[in-house]
Amino acid sequence: MIKAAVIGSTGYAGQEIVKLLLRHPGAELIWYGSKSYKGEKYSEIYANMNGLTDAYCSGDQLAEVADQADVIFTATPQGYCASLMNEDILTKTRIIDLSADFRIKDVAVYEKWYGIEHKSPQFIPEAVYGLCELARDNIKKARLVANPGCYTTCSILTLYPLAAEGLIDTGSIIIDAKSGTSGAGRSAKTANLFCEVNENIKAYGVGTHRHTPEIEEQLGYACGHDVTLTFTPHLVPMNRGILATTYSQLVPGVTGAEVRAAYDKYYGEEYFIRLLPDGTFPETRWVEGSNFTDIGFRVDERTGLIVAIGAIDNLVKGAAGQAVQNMNIMFGLPETEGIDQVPMFP
Amino acid sequence: MIKAAVIGSTGYAGQEIVKLLLRHPGAELIWYGSKSYKGEKYSEIYANMNGLTDAYCSGDQLAEVADQADVIFTATPQGYCASLMNEDILTKTRIIDLSADFRIKDVAVYEKWYGIEHKSPQFIPEAVYGLCELARDNIKKARLVANPGCYTTCSILTLYPLAAEGLIDTGSIIIDAKSGTSGAGRSAKTANLFCEVNENIKAYGVGTHRHTPEIEEQLGYACGHDVTLTFTPHLVPMNRGILATTYSQLVPGVTGAEVRAAYDKYYGEEYFIRLLPDGTFPETRWVEGSNFTDIGFRVDERTGLIVAIGAIDNLVKGAAGQAVQNMNIMFGLPETEGIDQVPMFP
Amino acid sequence: MIKAAVIGSTGYAGQEIVKLLLRHPGAELIWYGSKSYKGEKYSEIYANMNGLTDAYCSGDQLAEVADQADVIFTATPQGYCASLMNEDILTKTRIIDLSADFRIKDVAVYEKWYGIEHKSPQFIPEAVYGLCELARDNIKKARLVANPGCYTTCSILTLYPLAAEGLIDTGSIIIDAKSGTSGAGRSAKTANLFCEVNENIKAYGVGTHRHTPEIEEQLGYACGHDVTLTFTPHLVPMNRGILATTYSQLVPGVTGAEVRAAYDKYYGEEYFIRLLPDGTFPETRWVEGSNFTDIGFRVDERTGLIVAIGAIDNLVKGAAGQAVQNMNIMFGLPETEGIDQVPMFP
Amino acid sequence: MIKAAVIGSTGYAGQEIVKLLLRHPGAELIWYGSKSYKGEKYSEIYANMNGLTDAYCSGDQLAEVADQADVIFTATPQGYCASLMNEDILTKTRIIDLSADFRIKDVAVYEKWYGIEHKSPQFIPEAVYGLCELARDNIKKARLVANPGCYTTCSILTLYPLAAEGLIDTGSIIIDAKSGTSGAGRSAKTANLFCEVNENIKAYGVGTHRHTPEIEEQLGYACGHDVTLTFTPHLVPMNRGILATTYSQLVPGVTGAEVRAAYDKYYGEEYFIRLLPDGTFPETRWVEGSNFTDIGFRVDERTGLIVAIGAIDNLVKGAAGQAVQNMNIMFGLPETEGIDQVPMFP
Repeated sequence: MIKAAVIGSTGYAGQEIVKLLLRHPGAELIWYGSKSYKGEKYSEIYANMNGLTDAYCSGDQLAEVADQADVIFTATPQGYCASLMNEDILTKTRIIDLSADFRIKDVAVYEKWYGIEHKSPQFIPEAVYGLCELARDNIKKARLVANPGCYTTCSILTLYPLAAEGLIDTGSIIIDAKSGTSGAGRSAKTANLFCEVNENIKAYGVGTHRHTPEIEEQLGYACGHDVTLTFTPHLVPMNRGILATTYSQLVPGVTGAEVRAAYDKYYGEEYFIRLLPDGTFPETRWVEGSNFTDIGFRVDERTGLIVAIGAIDNLVKGAAGQAVQNMNIMFGLPETEGIDQVPMFP
Repeated sequence: MIKAAVIGSTGYAGQEIVKLLLRHPGAELIWYGSKSYKGEKYSEIYANMNGLTDAYCSGDQLAEVADQADVIFTATPQGYCASLMNEDILTKTRIIDLSADFRIKDVAVYEKWYGIEHKSPQFIPEAVYGLCELARDNIKKARLVANPGCYTTCSILTLYPLAAEGLIDTGSIIIDAKSGTSGAGRSAKTANLFCEVNENIKAYGVGTHRHTPEIEEQLGYACGHDVTLTFTPHLVPMNRGILATTYSQLVPGVTGAEVRAAYDKYYGEEYFIRLLPDGTFPETRWVEGSNFTDIGFRVDERTGLIVAIGAIDNLVKGAAGQAVQNMNIMFGLPETEGIDQVPMFP
Repeated sequence: MIKAAVIGSTGYAGQEIVKLLLRHPGAELIWYGSKSYKGEKYSEIYANMNGLTDAYCSGDQLAEVADQADVIFTATPQGYCASLMNEDILTKTRIIDLSADFRIKDVAVYEKWYGIEHKSPQFIPEAVYGLCELARDNIKKARLVANPGCYTTCSILTLYPLAAEGLIDTGSIIIDAKSGTSGAGRSAKTANLFCEVNENIKAYGVGTHRHTPEIEEQLGYACGHDVTLTFTPHLVPMNRGILATTYSQLVPGVTGAEVRAAYDKYYGEEYFIRLLPDGTFPETRWVEGSNFTDIGFRVDERTGLIVAIGAIDNLVKGAAGQAVQNMNIMFGLPETEGIDQVPMFP
Repeated sequence: MIKAAVIGSTGYAGQEIVKLLLRHPGAELIWYGSKSYKGEKYSEIYANMNGLTDAYCSGDQLAEVADQADVIFTATPQGYCASLMNEDILTKTRIIDLSADFRIKDVAVYEKWYGIEHKSPQFIPEAVYGLCELARDNIKKARLVANPGCYTTCSILTLYPLAAEGLIDTGSIIIDAKSGTSGAGRSAKTANLFCEVNENIKAYGVGTHRHTPEIEEQLGYACGHDVTLTFTPHLVPMNRGILATTYSQLVPGVTGAEVRAAYDKYYGEEYFIRLLPDGTFPETRWVEGSNFTDIGFRVDERTGLIVAIGAIDNLVKGAAGQAVQNMNIMFGLPETEGIDQVPMFP
């Protein structure tokens, strides 16, 4: 039985990890870490957990947890994980970090987009970017996994085969992404009040969103050269879900069949990625509450573009579900264990 | 492995049974019955099921299914199940009927409130009203279970101990209930369009809703005499959930501690019923996607009333979850098997 | 042209007053008071006002405003208005207070339910409870109007004729009220975040909500003796609207026709109150964005209860609209001036 | 007083015209046309109109209405208006057609995208495309105005100055649009049920939406040559609002200041178009219930793209509001008369 800890267990992503681990047959949750709610009963913070756990929140002392846990999920603000990371911790336990601290290989890029100094850049090289379907082998042996962001998981999975197989002009990529509001977290901000979000749609972080370099870096690996792209996130009045509508110039002559073959090559065997038939496109409701990524596309012969669309649940495949998937891979468990929920509709 | 069939599998409740059975370790779904979608691929009707089932919809021939299935769930319109029921079917298989056909013992009451003739009243006496926590022993041996309605499950569970222990004046009961919109079903009606339901709350069926006599009958059993009560349902702009706010005159002198003792007596050992601590009240979000019933109450000394509030997910404990719970009981499986989901929030 | 000021103009109710006054033909808004946003441009706080006002927020100095304005709307926290009120202010200007400070005649009741000391109880006697349809004559000459609360406006208007005409047992009144989330205000609280409110319904303030004594006092005036009643508010995932579902024991023998006659007697000539035909019940969507109150009822012969239901827009008739209606009455303008919006649907 | 008629008055757009005309000081509504609800009381179909009109629905006989009305709004299905149009009608009255029948100058394009034969192509040349801010002079004298579509109004207004001033490569335009659900109309379709739309976002009509050629044609006029672009609409779980996020390759060397100057040139004097300051972007909530179009943009120096975003209320500026604006222009009334509502928030 894997002993698992969650630091940052009282945020939405942290709570989702708790939810998954409570039903995971191979793991036991031994630490409900929380800076804000230390000492409080977990099921009073999240009353859905009533009767399911009697745990009280512990603090966020990473080093102390490292002595007890086989794996630690850090669902913490940017900079936290990097500020505490050291060799001792990584010797004792394995880390799955849901923050951005170890996602970006170029520390200068990280520091520029996040506006903070990286306190432990020496661990960046060994950190594995935990997009499970694309980095499974490296994840198996990793001590430190950088769990991908929600927008990035959806965007990269949607575009990776196109970039890797050279089917698109990677200089032309535009990602217009839409997210449910749980992606904004549980902290009390006026902008996230019900009446501010409900009956509204808006773009935000136009040209400046921090997930941009993460997507660029991974797609750069796919195609073998630097990628600069346009990424615009939008806030949608719903709890969960990300839809990434992507636009790329198709290399002249590439057919829809070739595009499908590329997707099949990368994802044909992947349980958690569902390629939709022609003429069908992802909707967030069909993946809600699950670890699935749905992908559909259309080659637009009028314009020469390919419109490829992906959908995930931002809290599952975009955070907690993929984190547990990473744990499963790291510990040699069946990859779907504990994260095989049927999407909940309606 | 139990061979299970669902007739009416393409309604919201039917789909929820499918969802649960696909992950049930002790049952296998062998028949996706649907009158409207016969011959269509199930995962094209509910794309959340993509990759999880390749089944096509069969029809709704109850007799034919009875030859193949150990249990049949009928999530069908009022009258359907009664019109086809016969001894032969009940000899071959067991029926869990999610319609109202066999819920009400007094056929005249049924015919009055539902406005249709009951076609097989001879089976009403043996039918067991499948409110699991209150009728477990009878359910075990039942051939025909009448799965309770959504409003009724929530209302009865909330009031039963008060009525059974004689703590309230059962002539004073008022139930003000609120439901998410999935309770209205998936048929295309103008009144259920997004723009008609969103940003609105309304009462409906004021004084005439069909769940009224079902609640009255069951609470009548609890207290040993006829009960007449006021029930007002409301439609809430959310997908799932029922909240029943009930008001009853407390018998003079009854204390909050006695009320709690009554709830503990009936539900103290019940996994799926969570009694909330004083000062805490149910919210539908804390039970969403789960089979739990949350109950809280307050004795109002100013008015002598007890306000008791219950919450369920109408599609789970109010329909599919309880249906599977009934199946588990009928077939001697652990009662929580396949329906032990952690409530999903947010 | 009436010179009007709003203190607390950056809350939701304050903003609604601003919205109404910007199009009011007889009033001019000269002061956008705000404690939190002083010095900021109003249209940057509420971007719907872009191009409609260039005003910057002033502070909340009541005495200073009194020198300039003919009428001051105070949409401020409990206690603010009472703490600053004095004879000088009331000599110079007229006050329409949207807080509870001057609503309750019995200062002990106020202090008990609100938990704060009333700093100027000497003005309570002259304050007029500004439920326009019921106190029009007194409002005309008032210096200080206590603008009713949102739940209370809806509840009192729904029940007043029944209580005043002696048609119900006023000891039996139960009000089960449901409100949109704008009633919770614009301050940043976790409980009001989108993901906490969306897909949820809950009761709150069970047995303790502060609007209770206000309703009791006014209905007491209606029937001529003290009233104690049960009031349970609920939070609904929508922006605007209040639905009050009320239950009262009808005096034996009273008919539906007599009930309708009572409503007609009080409201038959009232523009802003719409009595619905038999069998029709209010829905919040039909009053959204307007100053209307819709009322419908049903006499339930099975139980001897009358279920009377009212609906308003909490920010309009429940706050800003009624405040402007009070202003119109106080200054001799046509009562509907500037508040005659057609309800917006969908 | 203009005598106005609405055919198709029981759809959402038609109802919005009714709502506006009921408060329009210069027009009188004399005909509530409806095919589906002929003979029914209008305020029973739209209960927000209770007390505001006693009208009953008349039918949809265009020729008969033409004898009585100075202007007829046709908010009818595609093909209806074209099928009945004749010289006699246009001699007697003026038509503002909210369908697509007369929007597209090239009848072959219309027939291809709409899949129906155009029954009166002889009137296409004289029809004026009623995007008020861009065609005011022609609208004044038009007998037949083709009121623009909702997506198209928002998209064209957002891109027109960029195309007209040669600031962008019009071969690179991508429009990712998001719409509230009222755009889908009031007919009862499963896909538009509350539970199907709520908690979901999806793209639809990918590469095939009928508003595409309308946008292309108008932007083609702006830049003086044919335009082919990519347009992807999305359905958002909200009632009203369209957000169009557009991406275009900026002509090398063009600065943000030049872009702003272009917008100022076209819209600087326009009341209903609000250019947002740098760093600010439109949100649908800020225009809800109003006839405003909000536009913001960002030049992305990393990619050389300009992201220009527009927001409207699809039922107002995207349908009824613009239709009344057209009427005002056609009849020489002040352009803002009756459509100067302050956006409603929250």
